[in-house]
Amino acid sequence: MKYCTQCGNPLIFEIPHEDDRHRHICTACGVIHYENPKMVVGCIPEYGNRILLCRRAIEPRYGKWTIPAGYLENRETVTEGARREAYEEARLNMGELVPYRLYNIKHISQMYFIFRGLITDETFRPGIESLEVRLFACDEIPWDNLAFRVVAACLENFFKDRESGGFSFKIDEILPDDQ
Amino acid sequence: MKYCTQCGNPLIFEIPHEDDRHRHICTACGVIHYENPKMVVGCIPEYGNRILLCRRAIEPRYGKWTIPAGYLENRETVTEGARREAYEEARLNMGELVPYRLYNIKHISQMYFIFRGLITDETFRPGIESLEVRLFACDEIPWDNLAFRVVAACLENFFKDRESGGFSFKIDEILPDDQ
Repeated sequence: MKYCTQCGNPLIFEIPHEDDRHRHICTACGVIHYENPKMVVGCIPEYGNRILLCRRAIEPRYGKWTIPAGYLENRETVTEGARREAYEEARLNMGELVPYRLYNIKHISQMYFIFRGLITDETFRPGIESLEVRLFACDEIPWDNLAFRVVAACLENFFKDRESGGFSFKIDEILPDDQ
Repeated sequence: MKYCTQCGNPLIFEIPHEDDRHRHICTACGVIHYENPKMVVGCIPEYGNRILLCRRAIEPRYGKWTIPAGYLENRETVTEGARREAYEEARLNMGELVPYRLYNIKHISQMYFIFRGLITDETFRPGIESLEVRLFACDEIPWDNLAFRVVAACLENFFKDRESGGFSFKIDEILPDDQ
């Protein structure tokens, strides 16, 4: 972030008056540009004993497997966003979405809000951002070819919870690779 | 949003190739500026039978009562953010924070993630953004002088849940005033 979105003049990176952290401040009009974490929304789509994964047709992690998820857009609820992503990436029609996990990934200023939900019919197929979509039983999950660590953590938790019979909403954290 | 943060040139508001909604796009360098919802984090601080509210020393809603809450910052977890806000606004030392509600407020592209938690000692006092902080029993809540509708909704839900003895995490929505 180098230039002001309001007037186009250069920014400086300083602690504003009565603040306690650095912000991008406009040298001309004085506007402070706050930056905040982004929310990714998604779901674990269940179909009988199996879950659906999508193989990414886009970077990053082209060709790797993931649950349908993406950035929450302005003017949508987290549930609407997760439903939209499931449709966009796998043409999935999802039943009720139940909150499952909020993963904080603070080193990249992201949160993942993940739901559980049942696939309502067999009309799913790859959307434009997926190479293929497929149902996997627990012992078929391509653990070495998952797109993101948060996806692996989420699926591990999911199968563990399913085995113990207890799903509940929890907050968790993904730490940097070197920790 | 009028100018590019990367090169300072004017933006246009168009639907990018292979996208389905309008974005601010730079006319010179082509960068797409995505805008996403912001997360507010806060808590309902409990002390025995009462809860703590803060009277705002800042706009908007100067002089009105609220629970301690504010924008989640980059590189912090939702729990860390709620704890920081409780300390900043009321010098509160909070015990364990338990997820209570996620309120979608999509007409202003905000989410409120609210925890419940116990105040651990009596050292609370107004922070720089509060005129005063005070404990209120249910029948003392200044319902007509609360700062935001989401605060009123949250406290109504809280006292209802407390009476029925059942707290659990839920997702809810705040609609525009005219709906």
